Amino acid sequence: MLFERIAFIGIGLIGSSLARVIRRDGLCGHITVCARFQETLDKVVELDLADTVTNDPAEAVADADLVMICTPMGAYGAIADAISGNLKDGAIVSDVGSVKQSAIDSLAPKLPKTIHLVPGHPIAGTEHSGPESGFAELFVDRWCILTPATGTNEAATEKVAELWRKAGMMIEVMDAEHHDQVLGITSHLPHLIAYTIVGTATDLEDDLKQEVIKFSASGFRDFTRIAASDPVMWRDIFLQNKDAVLDILGRFNEDLTAMQRAIRRGEGDTLEDMFSRTRKIRRSVIDAKQD
Amino acid sequence: MLFERIAFIGIGLIGSSLARVIRRDGLCGHITVCARFQETLDKVVELDLADTVTNDPAEAVADADLVMICTPMGAYGAIADAISGNLKDGAIVSDVGSVKQSAIDSLAPKLPKTIHLVPGHPIAGTEHSGPESGFAELFVDRWCILTPATGTNEAATEKVAELWRKAGMMIEVMDAEHHDQVLGITSHLPHLIAYTIVGTATDLEDDLKQEVIKFSASGFRDFTRIAASDPVMWRDIFLQNKDAVLDILGRFNEDLTAMQRAIRRGEGDTLEDMFSRTRKIRRSVIDAKQD
Repeated sequence: MLFERIAFIGIGLIGSSLARVIRRDGLCGHITVCARFQETLDKVVELDLADTVTNDPAEAVADADLVMICTPMGAYGAIADAISGNLKDGAIVSDVGSVKQSAIDSLAPKLPKTIHLVPGHPIAGTEHSGPESGFAELFVDRWCILTPATGTNEAATEKVAELWRKAGMMIEVMDAEHHDQVLGITSHLPHLIAYTIVGTATDLEDDLKQEVIKFSASGFRDFTRIAASDPVMWRDIFLQNKDAVLDILGRFNEDLTAMQRAIRRGEGDTLEDMFSRTRKIRRSVIDAKQD
Repeated sequence: MLFERIAFIGIGLIGSSLARVIRRDGLCGHITVCARFQETLDKVVELDLADTVTNDPAEAVADADLVMICTPMGAYGAIADAISGNLKDGAIVSDVGSVKQSAIDSLAPKLPKTIHLVPGHPIAGTEHSGPESGFAELFVDRWCILTPATGTNEAATEKVAELWRKAGMMIEVMDAEHHDQVLGITSHLPHLIAYTIVGTATDLEDDLKQEVIKFSASGFRDFTRIAASDPVMWRDIFLQNKDAVLDILGRFNEDLTAMQRAIRRGEGDTLEDMFSRTRKIRRSVIDAKQD
């Protein structure tokens, strides 16, 4: 057993998948789940993911050795306010949010000095959301990035790492700001682009839109999957990683303008060169077993 | 048997998949494959996809009832020049290219009046290319668009339609220009965007690029698959569907700028609204069984 008691604050796709792993492997003695809506709590009970449920974060964290925050990131500040007075001495607070510097900024100043803050980001997911969408195998062979501040208790970081390893993940520890830059490129920009292109199609006249759906297997389909991700979660990600997203978006825009220019001017060689270079990255992704 | 003799001019993923269907179901008595490179012809023989092979288009089409052009679109003009003097009276010429108005413009003026031109576009594919990548099931439950000019022999159109139906496809007949507009949105823009974003990552410093590959499962990965498509084929598509691509790219750019503005100004409601609307399209794609 890794922990005596684990409290989940919020439980969607990621949280419920982790709870399934914990249940499956008996990694803790007691799971408490806190969610705002009774509907979510009912679902959690139905799925047998918790020993106790509550809509009160302060009640949820009392006696917990590990508090795992799994809400949209915009809620972090209010959660820190609600739980800080009720945390057990030496408890670990972790999270699964997609932006790490803002997670630290929202949580660290409000937590008591006896608490170990180990922010985390399991890089796994599907386009589905909610506790009913989770499954224990979601994390297998994927990376989990932990971004503890310098000086964080190493045993605490190691316990969180071990939890994710039990879920099948590989662990990487890095600086929060660097995490946000890398994920801005690999995750936030691709989602922004997918949301935009599907939005562009949404604005088409109705007849044309129906045809776009009908013939979506030609490429568009893959973008609709990405653009079906949870709207509130993604709203918060873009607001909280604004600088890194705008920076990489600027580079993307320059490159898109160059592509547009090559098409307008009929520069076939330029296009072929660009399209040949991108094949190599696909090969690297496959070699890294991330395809 | 649908045809006595079929000639393939060029044979990559699409052509070889169709040849496999024809072989499997005995849809013709004789297949000739023409390709420029001996290596391709050797592969075709090894895969047993042809009864005869040649690198001479004029030789390939002699006596053929159906000539199926499966090369990159940039080669169409030269192919029409090479075959026009050797086509059998009443033969059908078809193709599988992704842009239809330019296919007609390249082929129609050069073909004898006795020939039935039935341009086609089977909307199916993978990121792999070459005859060894083909498989007979590629087309099942996908759409094939045919764009015969007004006045084209209906029996000829129906024979081509029947061939694709045997491969498992659903048939839609439409105007070439309209096809190019719809595919500009569903296929050409998504590929352009994917090539661009993967290109942006290709230009990153080496350390950062390695991390982008490592953590690509967070979204970027899906774009690398699309951006691994055949460079020459896609060069030709953008050159030949320039107007439709630049038009939809203009709309996309406006929408991306609006998204960028909302992020910069921290307009959470705007972002959440946009991200919620795109979910509906995903639902429609799933309902249309194109996911």
